Amino acid sequence: MAGNSFGKAFKITTFGESHGKAIGVVIDGCPAGLSLDLDFIQSELDRRKPAQSKITTQRKEEDKFKILSGVFNNTTTGTPITIIVNNQDQKSEDYDLLSDKYRPSHADYTYQVKYGFRDHRGGGRASARETVSRVIAGAIAKIFLKQKGIEITGYVSQIGNIKIEKDYNQLNFANIEKNIVRCPDIQKALEMILLVEEVRNDGDSIGGVISCVIKNMPMGLGEPVFDKLQADLAKAMLSINAVKGFEYGSGFRCATMRGSEHNDVFYKKEEKIFTRTNYSGGIQGGISNGEDIYFDVAFKPTPSIMKTQQTLDINNNEVEINVTGRHDPCIVPRAVPVVEAMSAIVIMDHYLRQKINL
Amino acid sequence: MAGNSFGKAFKITTFGESHGKAIGVVIDGCPAGLSLDLDFIQSELDRRKPAQSKITTQRKEEDKFKILSGVFNNTTTGTPITIIVNNQDQKSEDYDLLSDKYRPSHADYTYQVKYGFRDHRGGGRASARETVSRVIAGAIAKIFLKQKGIEITGYVSQIGNIKIEKDYNQLNFANIEKNIVRCPDIQKALEMILLVEEVRNDGDSIGGVISCVIKNMPMGLGEPVFDKLQADLAKAMLSINAVKGFEYGSGFRCATMRGSEHNDVFYKKEEKIFTRTNYSGGIQGGISNGEDIYFDVAFKPTPSIMKTQQTLDINNNEVEINVTGRHDPCIVPRAVPVVEAMSAIVIMDHYLRQKINL
Amino acid sequence: MAGNSFGKAFKITTFGESHGKAIGVVIDGCPAGLSLDLDFIQSELDRRKPAQSKITTQRKEEDKFKILSGVFNNTTTGTPITIIVNNQDQKSEDYDLLSDKYRPSHADYTYQVKYGFRDHRGGGRASARETVSRVIAGAIAKIFLKQKGIEITGYVSQIGNIKIEKDYNQLNFANIEKNIVRCPDIQKALEMILLVEEVRNDGDSIGGVISCVIKNMPMGLGEPVFDKLQADLAKAMLSINAVKGFEYGSGFRCATMRGSEHNDVFYKKEEKIFTRTNYSGGIQGGISNGEDIYFDVAFKPTPSIMKTQQTLDINNNEVEINVTGRHDPCIVPRAVPVVEAMSAIVIMDHYLRQKINL
Amino acid sequence: MAGNSFGKAFKITTFGESHGKAIGVVIDGCPAGLSLDLDFIQSELDRRKPAQSKITTQRKEEDKFKILSGVFNNTTTGTPITIIVNNQDQKSEDYDLLSDKYRPSHADYTYQVKYGFRDHRGGGRASARETVSRVIAGAIAKIFLKQKGIEITGYVSQIGNIKIEKDYNQLNFANIEKNIVRCPDIQKALEMILLVEEVRNDGDSIGGVISCVIKNMPMGLGEPVFDKLQADLAKAMLSINAVKGFEYGSGFRCATMRGSEHNDVFYKKEEKIFTRTNYSGGIQGGISNGEDIYFDVAFKPTPSIMKTQQTLDINNNEVEINVTGRHDPCIVPRAVPVVEAMSAIVIMDHYLRQKINL
Repeated sequence: MAGNSFGKAFKITTFGESHGKAIGVVIDGCPAGLSLDLDFIQSELDRRKPAQSKITTQRKEEDKFKILSGVFNNTTTGTPITIIVNNQDQKSEDYDLLSDKYRPSHADYTYQVKYGFRDHRGGGRASARETVSRVIAGAIAKIFLKQKGIEITGYVSQIGNIKIEKDYNQLNFANIEKNIVRCPDIQKALEMILLVEEVRNDGDSIGGVISCVIKNMPMGLGEPVFDKLQADLAKAMLSINAVKGFEYGSGFRCATMRGSEHNDVFYKKEEKIFTRTNYSGGIQGGISNGEDIYFDVAFKPTPSIMKTQQTLDINNNEVEINVTGRHDPCIVPRAVPVVEAMSAIVIMDHYLRQKINL
Repeated sequence: MAGNSFGKAFKITTFGESHGKAIGVVIDGCPAGLSLDLDFIQSELDRRKPAQSKITTQRKEEDKFKILSGVFNNTTTGTPITIIVNNQDQKSEDYDLLSDKYRPSHADYTYQVKYGFRDHRGGGRASARETVSRVIAGAIAKIFLKQKGIEITGYVSQIGNIKIEKDYNQLNFANIEKNIVRCPDIQKALEMILLVEEVRNDGDSIGGVISCVIKNMPMGLGEPVFDKLQADLAKAMLSINAVKGFEYGSGFRCATMRGSEHNDVFYKKEEKIFTRTNYSGGIQGGISNGEDIYFDVAFKPTPSIMKTQQTLDINNNEVEINVTGRHDPCIVPRAVPVVEAMSAIVIMDHYLRQKINL
Repeated sequence: MAGNSFGKAFKITTFGESHGKAIGVVIDGCPAGLSLDLDFIQSELDRRKPAQSKITTQRKEEDKFKILSGVFNNTTTGTPITIIVNNQDQKSEDYDLLSDKYRPSHADYTYQVKYGFRDHRGGGRASARETVSRVIAGAIAKIFLKQKGIEITGYVSQIGNIKIEKDYNQLNFANIEKNIVRCPDIQKALEMILLVEEVRNDGDSIGGVISCVIKNMPMGLGEPVFDKLQADLAKAMLSINAVKGFEYGSGFRCATMRGSEHNDVFYKKEEKIFTRTNYSGGIQGGISNGEDIYFDVAFKPTPSIMKTQQTLDINNNEVEINVTGRHDPCIVPRAVPVVEAMSAIVIMDHYLRQKINL
Repeated sequence: MAGNSFGKAFKITTFGESHGKAIGVVIDGCPAGLSLDLDFIQSELDRRKPAQSKITTQRKEEDKFKILSGVFNNTTTGTPITIIVNNQDQKSEDYDLLSDKYRPSHADYTYQVKYGFRDHRGGGRASARETVSRVIAGAIAKIFLKQKGIEITGYVSQIGNIKIEKDYNQLNFANIEKNIVRCPDIQKALEMILLVEEVRNDGDSIGGVISCVIKNMPMGLGEPVFDKLQADLAKAMLSINAVKGFEYGSGFRCATMRGSEHNDVFYKKEEKIFTRTNYSGGIQGGISNGEDIYFDVAFKPTPSIMKTQQTLDINNNEVEINVTGRHDPCIVPRAVPVVEAMSAIVIMDHYLRQKINL
């Protein structure tokens, strides 16, 4: 049983390899009658696309999408929506030298073991290029959610040891897209950019953290006891390449807290219910309570570095490897739209699921 | 679309409320011919059960399980296995006073909003008593995995600010069940017990962290790109009551690391392949590589505290609430078998799924 | 991947063996707030239960159901509903003689082959006793659908060569429960009863057909292209023990018809849309059009006959077999509530699924 | 919850509209290492394609497929396989006149009602052109099954009142592809062709029956109690456009039979187990027993006829309709590869599912 589908009511199935003909997604379950802003979808892809700035990989991909089905006169018809992006700048020859070596901390070895067979070109299916599909589906989910007033914002909150210490409420989200690391704290953004450049010049890579906030959440989303909203968000995030951790609300800090401090007290304002604090991160018992949802996602340093490394080849010989190809010294800025996209897919899926209960 | 099932090949569906007739689970997909050690299943329930020590709730539940189907002569038949535990010590009257008040940071409010209706007795379905079902299913998964040599060990690594700083390889797991907090570091265990007692005497509660290690993992488990092994583990953990975070391998620490440091170099030993470090946490590209899987799970302080709190009632009046009932000042020690159980369910599910590829 | 669940939004999972402790069902996805008429549920079980008349098996089972979860004050809570029936009159010894022989046209052999292991008592999981679970879930679906005005009526239209030739519109459904074969045509009913008695006295069994009509269908139910309404009905029916065929609307007769005859012409009456004929059987393109849905289901003669038969034992020796135990000479009258139940489950599932589109 | 996926271990998701950019399929779960015979896939599409003979629609479609993902060096990689066929001969203008009228016994009205929105061009998603996707996926399943020795053969056994009365064992399957109605009985084939031509000249259409036989079945396939092999076959068949009935083994004839006649007696030959008759149709208790599986599928006359018909327009006005476009007077011959394809998908899905039990 393969695992290339995600979601139940808004179900996406992604396909495509890094250096194959195309990358794409089928969305089954998008309601009919949704008017699609095609420019918005493209702009989301552009936020993710390679060669967008001096600190990203220089692989050239236009990443222009093509709708194959499910849309008529720019409006969804209720039938499956299929959208693809043709691959263009496929320097597969960069990878031919690597075809018989296992790149450290890549998926080369595990794919070989699992399937007994492997498309070595650019990491094949394991490449982060797969996230193109997620960004497309997420853009459609965002269009739907925007109509309901729901806003999803991701930003880089940490690269290496440079970390925003402020709470998300103290940040100006308008700054996020104004710098190439997508960090709303301008001073920290400058420091981050310098760090990434230093790391790149060193032929190395560096990890980071993306924070995400969902505002204007409807109440009642999430399906106990397994499809709790945070459980599906966690799965969504951990399914993204390079992610090593997820925490929401108080997160790991909760371990040091007392209940009397951590409990979120309910109060009433203009006949609506709120909580005075929000350590719960907008979710109680797996169900949204209307407060902001916020969470952090940790990304490891990309394993493709420009240094000579020790490894094994497919005959188990110890060899040296020099990873060529074109790579990001820090994947985190380009992963922001991916985190937002997966969030939008989860929220839209649960929005539709909750309609059954109403 | 409700969400009370988990797993695809080894699929569990749990049911039951805290103060209903019974709590139970249906397991669909357990292979035929598995000999069940009934004493082991009971011993796992005993590790989870209330009133097991002076620092847990004193609710009295025998938690004796009863097999309704799927087992003949103590052996699985390939048909759905249903096992229940009848509820006994149901002091529902403790909860009658609470029936019209929303307990802070509990699921009372969100259940009311979502379903328009609520079983207020003991938290109903949202009660952590639901994890009885998970421990039963997990015990059966453990029996299966043990035959394959796979070992899953959970332990408490942090309560409040008391934290094991050692790597899991430096710990003696034989100590875990020798103390009531399930901490393998005896000195830390003593400190933790003192802290929990202090917190309880204060009418308060405290959070913590459970660490879990899976040894002797087969290679090739995990189904990209969404059902990656870490993604399903993350969902499994975040679906447990009170969990706020999950990280595996290097976890959130990876944000500060460089690729040259984080990459796990492959080497060969007696014709088998290993990695010199294991920041990957035994998973690369969503697929197990045979190294140990290890991860941390953060638990919030239980929201049931013995202090007067402010809240709202179902008519939106501001009221005071005194949570009675019998509660754990720290849920973490009793959650260890739950973390292990959910881990076992995920690994068994993927073990069976991988059989299709072989 | 086992297959003991059915439905997506209204999802049932059944469990239990003929001679095990209990038979039961978990329903996940029943909306909260549905008031359950417990007497109605019991009356549905009584329609299915053994020993209800002189022409059925004389196995004595009270078939009293017990609710384990999901219901509070006789109202559904939105959490999984679990209902069981304890087995009582388990003459397992009747089956011990059969434990090492394969009963012809039973599932003994195929279960042995599939699972390598078998609960031989009363057919185990393959027994039609499993349909108790379906009748319970179907009763709850009927309660839901009745609120929407939807009515589901099954009846026996053929036993052996005795067959109702009239269209369902010409029949008086009030007669169905007035005779023990559940045939609305009184004259045919008498003939059928005589035939079944003759067959029974001969130690033999006989097949038949159940017809089912669904009135007051909402429009828009069914999910192309695979979960078409007729496709899910077909699966539901063919999943019932002993069923060999399904046809809806014009059914197999359509093979001889011309389009000009078969096409259902639309017309308007009081601003509502109807079709003048209904060869479509109320479904076009997999979606209900508001006309009556009607279909036929063929049941084979029960394989348990009171005659000596040739067979093999588990060591592949040719042996004679005399099937003892207590059996129905014609299963069709008792299968009527099962056909209705599975229909109700399908319609309710699609009713809930369509809410997402609205 | 939309319904455009089918299968659990070998899962297909189809997409595309009759007059959209492309029709296609994603296959998730095809094992890695399967060598694909691309010519065979094309030859299967050619068996289905329009304009293949004088008695089919004259719409011109090359139906050349294009692989987008999941295949490397003509071998499956274990990742999702996506294959599309671009639409070419889209005379959408033929349909513009129909855009505001409901064609009788088509899906125009129900799609409008369900989705509140409709792609009227050529029936959109409801067009039988969607079966291109099924034939592609079925061809891949056939390649897999052929390696296991499993053979699936469909043929036309009835058109109108012209019907093969012989058992499938008495037919020469080599004749099937030698005539344009795909009937293995040459004399009946001639009669059928004459009938179809007569019907076409009359501007009308006619129904028929396809029979299908699966030989060399492995034992043990099928997952009780809902995913019984016959239940999944029934769903697969009833999900095909225009299908009105399904029966397997003895089928509807079983209603007139006695158990003593219908029971299939086991016997041994060279240490293997067989049954002397095969009224069971190769399936007992939902599980294959190794005998041939055989079944019939009834197809209605295509609703697109060249006669003036009464109908309603989208404003509920009574109007006349003249269906233009290019249509088959009898869809049955072209549906043979579709029936085979869906059969192959079901058998392969269960073949993979059974691997978990082994």
